[in-house]
Amino acid sequence: MASIKKPLHQLDAWQAAEALAHRDIQAIDLVRACLDRIEQRDPVVHAFVELNANAALALARQLDAGPVRGLLHGLPFGVKDLLDTADLPTAYGSPIYAGQQPLADAAAVALCREAGAVLLGKTVSTELANMHPGVTRNPHNLQHTPGGSSSGSAAAVADGMLPLALGTQTAGSLIRPAAFCGVVGFKPSHNRVSRAGVKSLSETLDTIGGFGRSVRDVALLGAVLTGDKRLVDPRNFDAQASSAPRIGLCATPDWSLADEDTQQAWAQAEKALTGYARPVALPAELQDLVAQQKAVQMFETARSLRHEHRHHAHQLSPSLLALLEDGMRISGETHAFNLKAVAHHRHVAADLFRDHDVLLAPSALGEAPAGLATTGDPLFCRGWTLLGLPCIHLPFARGRNGLPVGLQLVGRFADDHLLLTAAHWVHEQLTR
Amino acid sequence: MASIKKPLHQLDAWQAAEALAHRDIQAIDLVRACLDRIEQRDPVVHAFVELNANAALALARQLDAGPVRGLLHGLPFGVKDLLDTADLPTAYGSPIYAGQQPLADAAAVALCREAGAVLLGKTVSTELANMHPGVTRNPHNLQHTPGGSSSGSAAAVADGMLPLALGTQTAGSLIRPAAFCGVVGFKPSHNRVSRAGVKSLSETLDTIGGFGRSVRDVALLGAVLTGDKRLVDPRNFDAQASSAPRIGLCATPDWSLADEDTQQAWAQAEKALTGYARPVALPAELQDLVAQQKAVQMFETARSLRHEHRHHAHQLSPSLLALLEDGMRISGETHAFNLKAVAHHRHVAADLFRDHDVLLAPSALGEAPAGLATTGDPLFCRGWTLLGLPCIHLPFARGRNGLPVGLQLVGRFADDHLLLTAAHWVHEQLTR
Repeated sequence: MASIKKPLHQLDAWQAAEALAHRDIQAIDLVRACLDRIEQRDPVVHAFVELNANAALALARQLDAGPVRGLLHGLPFGVKDLLDTADLPTAYGSPIYAGQQPLADAAAVALCREAGAVLLGKTVSTELANMHPGVTRNPHNLQHTPGGSSSGSAAAVADGMLPLALGTQTAGSLIRPAAFCGVVGFKPSHNRVSRAGVKSLSETLDTIGGFGRSVRDVALLGAVLTGDKRLVDPRNFDAQASSAPRIGLCATPDWSLADEDTQQAWAQAEKALTGYARPVALPAELQDLVAQQKAVQMFETARSLRHEHRHHAHQLSPSLLALLEDGMRISGETHAFNLKAVAHHRHVAADLFRDHDVLLAPSALGEAPAGLATTGDPLFCRGWTLLGLPCIHLPFARGRNGLPVGLQLVGRFADDHLLLTAAHWVHEQLTR
Repeated sequence: MASIKKPLHQLDAWQAAEALAHRDIQAIDLVRACLDRIEQRDPVVHAFVELNANAALALARQLDAGPVRGLLHGLPFGVKDLLDTADLPTAYGSPIYAGQQPLADAAAVALCREAGAVLLGKTVSTELANMHPGVTRNPHNLQHTPGGSSSGSAAAVADGMLPLALGTQTAGSLIRPAAFCGVVGFKPSHNRVSRAGVKSLSETLDTIGGFGRSVRDVALLGAVLTGDKRLVDPRNFDAQASSAPRIGLCATPDWSLADEDTQQAWAQAEKALTGYARPVALPAELQDLVAQQKAVQMFETARSLRHEHRHHAHQLSPSLLALLEDGMRISGETHAFNLKAVAHHRHVAADLFRDHDVLLAPSALGEAPAGLATTGDPLFCRGWTLLGLPCIHLPFARGRNGLPVGLQLVGRFADDHLLLTAAHWVHEQLTR
């Protein structure tokens, strides 16, 4: 491979992985570069809640001295503090769980470690992965939100502290922070990645995914999490070999709420993808997914957090408390109706991909909003999460405040490899 | 209500619930009766891993002195040791987790407590809810298995130690032990009951449910777990008001493996339901569900237990270790294919209920097998679990060894209330 020209902490994960596998670079140097960056920047970005520096350095030395372990050999990674770790406390972004030490790694963490990844630390989650913000700031402008709920993971990757990080999405918690921080965020198809050892909120929706700086980065992570080697087939990333995907431009029924920055990114994408993309409208049955997603999430979250509500109400934020109370007012009868509707809508959604390989859709209303009081609106992610479809955010533009803007691609259920292949191609068109 | 004639510990849960709500009996007396029964019988049945006697007595006194809290006011219940409890250790049936003390109740436990139920103790799970047996014996014959993985919960309810108990099913872990122990076992529709705080094995399949002595008993539990009040509509249980359901007799493609006892129960049911039931065959697409269920369960369990396999292999049974290794050999590509097939099959399954309200199907091959080395075969449950349909086991016969035999009814997805209404009617026909 060509010699490394960037500072190590700025390498894409896939570039670092290749260099590590070829022993062109050492894991210990990459870990040190990330730790240095964390030391320099985390005092203002606040992406981490726990660091694992000594254990990470020791493991990196071991990895450098031994055989290549797997796809993530020697790559530092961070884990949203909603996922259990056997060697670091896990507090789910809530004072209720401050200092909790799980006995086991979450399955996703165990799989990354097995593939050779080096855990650098736990990253900030909003309170129980809901809307009440954590302390993380947007590395592009510290006065703006990084998005949530996977706030720390997105900010750390955006700021060069980590090449890869794990997050979760129930409404828009991977795609929105990826958009606000200007990184690639990947939400795999629902249920493809084990949620064992992850604080459960809404089982119809909760999905584990992650962040990187390129499509190839999250493909590495996705291959490890799903066990599907098609995600890292080198042909996916070979411009000569790969043919252009058929792209549906799906502005969604809420498009009128997208602001000028998202509209401009959309116009730019339409232009860059001329000849490959054409507009597609959601069928009538799929026009009201947002309201349904909210009802499903609220009902299920209220029940999943029943213990916390009964015994720790004083340690919950007023906004989460209100959400849980709203959720408890939704009847089980309504939820039964909604679960049937979700199953039907997921079936109907397959038709969207008869004439298209992927759909291009907005990720967020616009740039990261100013202030740290909210993490922004997951509006444009709710429907896709409800449908369980794989989604990937592609950053490629800047808004009026100079903050990152991008769009997401949505793929067919369980065809995550096709989504990533298309995303690599589309991202090249958008950033060339 | 009529005066109570049975010993308190033998009451059906719904009878006890009515008597408690009307203050015809006291929670403290019911709790004491169950604890006495446990003291007398558990040294030979081994249904419990942890008891909560003092806390249960104290809570019962409180409940007797205060207002009626909810549907389960004053009812003792047990919890399979796969579900977290904030006041009792939770070991998932594995030495790896011996003595683990969770910080929170599982959502299902919290919901039962909120409804006024009194936790008496944790019941035996097989090792990590897989096939390696726990110590529980079948209360009908101590030389026979109680079934698994919810072994202790089924045995405790069967033996009069508890009126209600929670369990989980991934293959056949509610219906099979219900069949072997001769109690009613209810597996709600997949995803209707929050699995928060339950050790995760296979998210496509894992379902929380429970055991009682009558359909009305598990309806109480189901209403609390799902929040759906239709499950306890008194009209469901009124012979005058309820009309006969349209019953499909679905012997399943593996019927030839049912033994003489199950065949005899089947013949008995056909006779009792003459005029209301007619044979129905699974469509061609649903003929191979068992193999698919096995592949989904093995793949997902192997990944969910990745940490345990990597770090505690010496504390896993040889059979579980082999299962995990088989699971790791299934590729993510195959699993993606299987997940698509599951979604398709769940869609196709809805057609089964166009001409039928419920399906009658075998629960187990026959009586509980002799010996404690295995917990029996979940064969007849695998397909329904894969389809995510609600199932209820109805005990009504005896086999050659005098052990309980019965059949299960299967309902339409998310129409759990219709299943229970039909089950009450069918159970009356079968047991009159």
